[in-house]
Amino acid sequence: MLASIELSQRRERLLPTLHRLKVGAFLVTARPNVRYLSGYTGSNGMLLLTRDRSVLLTDPRYGVQADEESDCEVKVVRGDLSLEAIKWLTRARIHTVAIEAERISFETYRKLRDTGKLRPVPAHSAIEELRMVKSAAEIDAIRTSVKLNSAALGEALRRFRPSMTETDLAAEIEYRMRRLGADGPAFETIVAAGAHSALPHARPSADRIRNNQLVLVDMGASVAGYSSDMTRTYAIGNPDAKMRRTYRAVLESQLAAINAIKPGISAGAVDRVARDTLRRFRLEQTFIHSTGHGLGLEIHERPRLGRKEKTKLAPGMVVTVEPGSYFEGWGGIRIEDTVLVTAQGCEILTPTAKELTVL
Amino acid sequence: MLASIELSQRRERLLPTLHRLKVGAFLVTARPNVRYLSGYTGSNGMLLLTRDRSVLLTDPRYGVQADEESDCEVKVVRGDLSLEAIKWLTRARIHTVAIEAERISFETYRKLRDTGKLRPVPAHSAIEELRMVKSAAEIDAIRTSVKLNSAALGEALRRFRPSMTETDLAAEIEYRMRRLGADGPAFETIVAAGAHSALPHARPSADRIRNNQLVLVDMGASVAGYSSDMTRTYAIGNPDAKMRRTYRAVLESQLAAINAIKPGISAGAVDRVARDTLRRFRLEQTFIHSTGHGLGLEIHERPRLGRKEKTKLAPGMVVTVEPGSYFEGWGGIRIEDTVLVTAQGCEILTPTAKELTVL
Repeated sequence: MLASIELSQRRERLLPTLHRLKVGAFLVTARPNVRYLSGYTGSNGMLLLTRDRSVLLTDPRYGVQADEESDCEVKVVRGDLSLEAIKWLTRARIHTVAIEAERISFETYRKLRDTGKLRPVPAHSAIEELRMVKSAAEIDAIRTSVKLNSAALGEALRRFRPSMTETDLAAEIEYRMRRLGADGPAFETIVAAGAHSALPHARPSADRIRNNQLVLVDMGASVAGYSSDMTRTYAIGNPDAKMRRTYRAVLESQLAAINAIKPGISAGAVDRVARDTLRRFRLEQTFIHSTGHGLGLEIHERPRLGRKEKTKLAPGMVVTVEPGSYFEGWGGIRIEDTVLVTAQGCEILTPTAKELTVL
Repeated sequence: MLASIELSQRRERLLPTLHRLKVGAFLVTARPNVRYLSGYTGSNGMLLLTRDRSVLLTDPRYGVQADEESDCEVKVVRGDLSLEAIKWLTRARIHTVAIEAERISFETYRKLRDTGKLRPVPAHSAIEELRMVKSAAEIDAIRTSVKLNSAALGEALRRFRPSMTETDLAAEIEYRMRRLGADGPAFETIVAAGAHSALPHARPSADRIRNNQLVLVDMGASVAGYSSDMTRTYAIGNPDAKMRRTYRAVLESQLAAINAIKPGISAGAVDRVARDTLRRFRLEQTFIHSTGHGLGLEIHERPRLGRKEKTKLAPGMVVTVEPGSYFEGWGGIRIEDTVLVTAQGCEILTPTAKELTVL
């Protein structure tokens, strides 16, 4: 179980939201939010938070686990948890309840609304915003995840030989993660060689990795629930001039963006630095996604380092920085680290080297 | 790409729902439903279906992939897909749109509603209900997944030695899946030894698997998007009388439930057969979950084989049958196969033996 003091501090940080929304309770339904605020990791659960109570609803499969993991009052119920939540709120004479607008289903919302006695009040990402700034315990957990992820890549690459398929290398990477103690990959591992690497979200195929190709590896581990995320692009055999030039541009873009990260800068400004650097190489049109994203209990969290994102970075935020350059039919290059925002600037958590490396 | 004929047949089966709900379009937002109806497998996408058009919205990261995978008209857009969907519906002069009530977020619903020009009409699991009965191509895909899953268990068990940790065995299982061509595990692989096996959804730990323990393995592969699901419980060293008796009871319960499966029987009646059999062994109180669930593009689909479930089984449905018996502090036994409902009765797809086996 997470320290009860850590969990109760997280819940306390939500109290101003209850006050601001003028609600008697917050009904938390999204799994990572339930986990964040209660410690409970099971797949079925809802959390009811009031000013002075924290009640976790789950089903009989998870009763023992919920008691072990959470410091909340655990109520084990059969059937629809939302109906049970409604009963509980009614008995507690609560008439207004905050909901996670982006994550609660229309149907759960409708059940609350149709009681005629409860007013659901949309709370827009209030919990996700709390989660942006990580506690010391969370930063430790992310450090552990990031280190394990890099160690797994190292072990897998020692077993790399050209003629391996993309799938073989992905299997090796995930096996090494697991053996090192990960829960599993934090997302579908990407191993994309040659033209496949031009698809930012390619899936590993049964194609063999051949000489004179680029191979892009985007991988993350989930360790005790916390994600890591790293991309490296390697050359198989001697890289040609276009590969070298594009790699250099992406690396400069990545370093410039990292260099810009400090408390007070907006997420959009960091994105702009990455884009401006690629523009100097006339590659801005080949960079078709945003520069990065927060991570933690989920692989994609706030803040997004994207155009027009106004969130100001603050110490304790953890974000990826991952510019890329993609040419359909030729291939792509992306370089990604996980970075912690500190009081002074930032710290690159990912220990893996990023000079252009020939495998 | 899936055969275009397969995809258009699936979409045609949804047309009566548009008619019944008196809507001009269906806005599909849940990822497995988008995949089912369009072939597109990316993480960001929305599908608009009308009587005569199928439009897939996605972002620039997935443009190439969407064109490759789907026979729908692909529209690549930046930013919020739901705003783009609203624009498209407005231009097409459509005023009523079906939504997936249980899966669309409150926020997307609210955006549709607040246009003032669109009426969102909840369609309750209409697509999930279509998905219950699998096409020949889908049954082939599930067969492939189930066989691969059993082969992976076989390969992993040949490498089993007592003193392995739960995590080691889980890593070995997932590595074998991957090497055999799986996309990855369909859910978090469970390897639970001794008292851990009493938790139906235990996570593998760093504890070593010891002599005179039970070890429960619940595993599924995802192969070309389709899931498999199997549980086996093994004895390490000679099983004692309670282990033997409980194993026999669970196996009899599982066989009886499978034996009951045929077109026309209700899902609840199959669950009852499993429970009644355990009652003869006075173990009904130790069976704390439902007897099974459908599977396909998702690991948990309809129908649920649970108490009071009225859905009638029909040829082409694929379900798991997985009764179990759990004693807190002692351990648990579960036996699970994937089963296809046929015109005559059913076919057990899982080829792995299920007599009590000593590892």
